[in-house]
Amino acid sequence: MHARQDPPADTAARLAALRAELAGRGLAGFVVPRADEHQGEFVPPRAERLAWLTGFTGSAGLAIVLADRAAIFVDGRYTLQLRAQADPNQFLFRHITDEPPDRWLAETLKPGEKLGFDPWLHTVDGAAKLAAACAKAGAVLEPCADNPLDAVWPEQPAPPLAPVAPHPLAHAGKSAQDKRKELAAELTEAKADVAVLTLPDSIAWLLNIRGGDVAHTPLALGFALLYAGGQVDLFMDPRKLDAEVTAHLGNEVMVDDPADFGPALDALGQAGKTVRLDPATAAAAIEARLAAAGAQVQRGADPCALPKACKNETELDGARAAHRRDGAALTRFLAWLAQEAPKGKLSELEAADRLAAFRGEDAELRDLSFDTIAGAGPNGAIVHYRVDAASNRRLEPGSLFLIDSGAQYPDGTTDVTRTIAVGAPTAEMRDRFTRVLKGHIALATARFPKGTTGSQLDTLARRPLWEAGLDYDHGTGHGVGSYLGVHEGPQRISKLPSKVALKPGMICSNEPGYYKAGAYGIRIENLVAVRPADGMAEAEKEMYAFETLTLAPIDRALVDTEIMTADEIAWLDAYHARVRETIGPLVDEETRNWLEDATAALA
Amino acid sequence: MHARQDPPADTAARLAALRAELAGRGLAGFVVPRADEHQGEFVPPRAERLAWLTGFTGSAGLAIVLADRAAIFVDGRYTLQLRAQADPNQFLFRHITDEPPDRWLAETLKPGEKLGFDPWLHTVDGAAKLAAACAKAGAVLEPCADNPLDAVWPEQPAPPLAPVAPHPLAHAGKSAQDKRKELAAELTEAKADVAVLTLPDSIAWLLNIRGGDVAHTPLALGFALLYAGGQVDLFMDPRKLDAEVTAHLGNEVMVDDPADFGPALDALGQAGKTVRLDPATAAAAIEARLAAAGAQVQRGADPCALPKACKNETELDGARAAHRRDGAALTRFLAWLAQEAPKGKLSELEAADRLAAFRGEDAELRDLSFDTIAGAGPNGAIVHYRVDAASNRRLEPGSLFLIDSGAQYPDGTTDVTRTIAVGAPTAEMRDRFTRVLKGHIALATARFPKGTTGSQLDTLARRPLWEAGLDYDHGTGHGVGSYLGVHEGPQRISKLPSKVALKPGMICSNEPGYYKAGAYGIRIENLVAVRPADGMAEAEKEMYAFETLTLAPIDRALVDTEIMTADEIAWLDAYHARVRETIGPLVDEETRNWLEDATAALA
Repeated sequence: MHARQDPPADTAARLAALRAELAGRGLAGFVVPRADEHQGEFVPPRAERLAWLTGFTGSAGLAIVLADRAAIFVDGRYTLQLRAQADPNQFLFRHITDEPPDRWLAETLKPGEKLGFDPWLHTVDGAAKLAAACAKAGAVLEPCADNPLDAVWPEQPAPPLAPVAPHPLAHAGKSAQDKRKELAAELTEAKADVAVLTLPDSIAWLLNIRGGDVAHTPLALGFALLYAGGQVDLFMDPRKLDAEVTAHLGNEVMVDDPADFGPALDALGQAGKTVRLDPATAAAAIEARLAAAGAQVQRGADPCALPKACKNETELDGARAAHRRDGAALTRFLAWLAQEAPKGKLSELEAADRLAAFRGEDAELRDLSFDTIAGAGPNGAIVHYRVDAASNRRLEPGSLFLIDSGAQYPDGTTDVTRTIAVGAPTAEMRDRFTRVLKGHIALATARFPKGTTGSQLDTLARRPLWEAGLDYDHGTGHGVGSYLGVHEGPQRISKLPSKVALKPGMICSNEPGYYKAGAYGIRIENLVAVRPADGMAEAEKEMYAFETLTLAPIDRALVDTEIMTADEIAWLDAYHARVRETIGPLVDEETRNWLEDATAALA
Repeated sequence: MHARQDPPADTAARLAALRAELAGRGLAGFVVPRADEHQGEFVPPRAERLAWLTGFTGSAGLAIVLADRAAIFVDGRYTLQLRAQADPNQFLFRHITDEPPDRWLAETLKPGEKLGFDPWLHTVDGAAKLAAACAKAGAVLEPCADNPLDAVWPEQPAPPLAPVAPHPLAHAGKSAQDKRKELAAELTEAKADVAVLTLPDSIAWLLNIRGGDVAHTPLALGFALLYAGGQVDLFMDPRKLDAEVTAHLGNEVMVDDPADFGPALDALGQAGKTVRLDPATAAAAIEARLAAAGAQVQRGADPCALPKACKNETELDGARAAHRRDGAALTRFLAWLAQEAPKGKLSELEAADRLAAFRGEDAELRDLSFDTIAGAGPNGAIVHYRVDAASNRRLEPGSLFLIDSGAQYPDGTTDVTRTIAVGAPTAEMRDRFTRVLKGHIALATARFPKGTTGSQLDTLARRPLWEAGLDYDHGTGHGVGSYLGVHEGPQRISKLPSKVALKPGMICSNEPGYYKAGAYGIRIENLVAVRPADGMAEAEKEMYAFETLTLAPIDRALVDTEIMTADEIAWLDAYHARVRETIGPLVDEETRNWLEDATAALA
C-alpha cells in the first residue's frame, strides 16, 4: 500500500528554505510537479516533493513557488483534498484546467525573471508549454542542473532498491529477445539508431522483468536504450538485480549504473546518432542533453507503447485466469457484505479491509493495483474518494455503497467497481443505476470496424444518461496492463479526442457512472478485451468486439427492467449465468448459495 | 451552374511551357493546388489552374511539376475521374492520403533544389507542411512573387466582377454594425489590433452582403481588415459595388482597391500592430508579408467563423421558410418521379433537370447550392458522383436512385438527399436502407449536454450499420450556411476528432449512408439545427437537441419495420405527419394525393 504523507507541520519553514535557495541561485521561482523522472502514476517517496513542500498528497498536481506568492494547481478530483491538506496562508489554490499554470505564469512573472524547473521532472511537451508561458511574460524558463528543493530537503529518502524478478514466459507469452528483435526492426524501418525508453512499464514489458520500486505497480525504476540491432543498455542500480535476473536478461542486455545514463546520451550525440524520443513522456533533460551533444532527435511514440497494449493470447489467458480468481474473491466479499451491511454497523474501512483479506487468501496476490475506493452514501459521489479515519462512514440503510478495487497477480491486473444497495434503494437510485448499466451494456456489446478509436465509442456509454439530462465527468475507460499499470496507454475510451485505434488484445475498463453530490455515487466497471467479432458472416469490414473479463454479480436490486430493452435484459442474464457457472465452483457453499440468487435471471 | 473545363488537347505543350518557365526562374519544380486566394470550395475560372494544366476538374487536388516528372494527388472520391481526365503519360496518379505529396516530395526532391509555390494559394499551415517536406530532402520551398503558371496561360480569365448586393436585415437578423462591434470587442479582449479576414463567406456574413463571383455560393471575392475599433477596410474591386451597397456598408467600412491590400499589410507591420490571422485558412503570403513588415502575428481562429455558424432566430426562421418551399419542390419532384420512374425510360440527367425545374418555379431561387448528385443503380455508390452525358444511366426497375441536391434562397441554404426504390427493392436493399434510417433517427433524436462535439455524436449514426459489419466512408454531417456555403465550419459531425462543441443555432447535415460498389448507393440526408432540448425537467446539465429542418418524404417502400424499434417507427410516422401537414398545403392536388400515401403511418 501507498505510504501517506502527513501534512507538514512546518510548511512555512520549508517554503522559506526553498525561497532562500532560489534567491541564492538568482531564480524568481521554481516549479514543483508531482512527478518523478519516469512520469509514473505512482512515484517513490523521494519524488514526493509536492507533498513534502505543501502537504498535498494527491496523485496529480503542481506547485509554483515565487518570491512573494505560491500557488498549487490541482484538478477537480482534488480540490477538496487540497483544501484539507495545504495551508491557504502559504498557497493560492487553483483549478488546473479552469485557471491553468501557464496562464498564471504569463500574468504573474515579470519581464527578465528566471523561473527554474527540474528538467528531469517535466516532459519535453510539458516544458515547452511552461517555456511558452514564461515567454509571454517576457521571462525565461531555466533548467536547474540539480533540484533546489532537494537541496533543502535534508531527510529526502533514497531511491528505492526493490529486487527485480523475471516475468516468466508462461505469463509474458513472448520472449524478451523476440520483443527486442521486433522493435529493433521497426526502429530500422523508421531510420532511428536507438530509442530512449523512459517509462519503467515499457522497460518491464520489453525485458520481461518486474520490480517493486513503487506502490501498486510492479515497476523497476530505470532508463534504457534500445538499439536498432536489438541490444539494450539498461540503466538500473545493479543492487536490484540478482544473478537469476541477470541471466534472464541475457548477453544482449547490458546493465549500467544509472549515473552513466547521461554520459551515454552524450556519446549518442557525439556519434551523430538518430535517437527516437517520445516528447509526451520523456524528460526534457534527455532531449536537451541529446541535442546539445549533437544527436538527431526523432520525436515519436515510445515503441513499446502499442505492442505492450495489445496483449498476446498467453497474456489474455492469464487475464482470464486472474479475473476468475479475483472474481471469486470479490464474490465472497459481496456475499459477506449482503450479510453484514444490513446490520448497519459496517464502515467503509472495514469493508475495504475485508475485501483485501479475501483477495489476500490467494497466494498469487502480489498487491492491490490501487488504493481501494470504498464510498458509502455521499462519499460515493466523490469520484476519486480515498477512505481514511476522518472520512470513514457507516454503510446506512437506504444508501448506496460504491467499491472500486483491483489487484496485481503475476498473470494479470484487475480493476472492478460494483455499486451495492444497502437496504431498499429509492426509485431514483434504481433509475440512475439502470441508465449506467444500459450504458455499460451498450459499450460491452458494441461491434465496431477496425480503425475505430475509443473516442468514437464513448458516447454509447453516455447516451442513456444524456436522455435524462445526466452525465458523468470522467472518462469511460482506460487501458490496463498485464501485471503492470492499472492505467496504461495509448488507448482510452473518452470524449477527449484520440487518434489511437482499438486493436485486438487491448484491455480497457468499461466504467460509466453517475454521481449525485452529497447523496450517492454509482459506477459499474468491468474490464474488457478487444477481440475479433464473431458470427458476422456478411461483414464487409474487419469487425471487433469486446470480451468482458471481469466476473462478479451486478446488484439486481438496483435494476429497473422497465427502462431496459429485451436485449439488455438478455445481456445481463447471460452475464450473470456466466458469472454463476465460472465463479460458483470456486467459492464456498454459502457464497455459492448467495450467488445463485444474486445471478438469477430477470427475464 | 459550374462551368466544366474540357480536357486540354495540349497537356504536353502546357507542361513544357511551364517547365521552361520554371527553368528560367531556377526552380526545380512548382506546386499547383486546386485553390484560389480564399481557399473556397468553389473557385472562379481564373483559379482553375489545375484543370488548365492537367484536365482534371475535381473540386480538390494538387499537382507537383518537376523537371523530369509530374504527379497529381487526389482523394478517393476522384481516383476514377482523374484517370478519365488526365494523361497518364504526363502525370503520375497518386492517392493524396495513402501517398501524400509531402512524402513524395521528401523522396523525390534532391538536396539544394528549390521548389516554387504561389504563397497566395496555400494556407500558412499548408505551406509549413510543404516546407517541412522539402527540408527532409535537403531542398527549399520558395515563394514565387508571381505565379509562373499564370505567365504561360495566355487566355487565363480575368477575376470575376459580379455585382454585390446587401443581405437585408430581414434575413440576416443582425446588423453589420452590431456584428462589427461584437467582434471588435472580442479582438480588444484578445489584445489584437486587427484581424485579417480572407474567407469571402466571413466577409459576406460580417458585412451582410452577398455576391456572385463563384458558382453555387453567393460570395463576393475580396479581403478585409477588421479593426479592434469596429471599422473595416474592404479590399474589393469597386466595380462590383453600386451606390446602394456602398450606402449599406456605411461610413465605417472603407472600400479599397484589391491592389492596396498588400501595402495595407505593410502599413500594419510598420505600425507594429498585433494582427489576428487564421493559419488554417489564410494565405501564407499574408503572414509572410505581415511578419516581414514587423507586425506581431497572433495566430487564431477567424473571428467570424463561430458567430456565423450559430444562426440567430431570424436566420433560423429563414431556414425553416426556405425548407418549406424547398420541400414542396422536392415533394413535387418525388411525386412526379413515382409516376415516371416505373416506365423505365427516365435518365439521371432528366431527373436532375426536372428537380431543378421544380425548384426554379420559386421566384426566390437564386442558384442550386451544388451540382446535383443523381445516381441510378451503381452510380449511386459513387459518393461524389456527377452525372454527365457519358455516365448518364437509365433508372431501371429493381434499382435504387439516389438524389442529393440543394438550393440557395435569400432566406436559407438547403441540402437534402433521398433514396428511392424504382420498382420492387430486394430484401438486402431494405435492410441496408433501414439501418441507414435507424442511424439517421439516432442522430436526429440525440440529446446531448453543452460542450458535446460532433465527433462524439457521429457513432450514433453508424452503430446500426456496424451491427451488421457495414459502414460508410464519409462524414455524417457538415455545417451549412445561411444563404452562404453549403459546406461551412467550424463544426462537423465526423469520426475525425473535433474540438468544436455544437452550439444552439448551428445547422448541420445528418446524412448517414451505405454504398455497395457496382450495385447501389443509399443516403438519407436532412438538415438539422442545434436547439435547447425541451421537456427535460430533471436535467442536471444544459442539454441540446436537434430540430430537423428538411421536409420531404422518406421512401416507405425501403423501410423494414421488422428491424426497427417502436420509438424509431414513431419518429418516422411523426416526421411524415409533419411533412404532410406542412408541405400538403403548398403543392398541387395530385402531388398532395401522392403525399398522403407516401407519408401514411407505418404503425
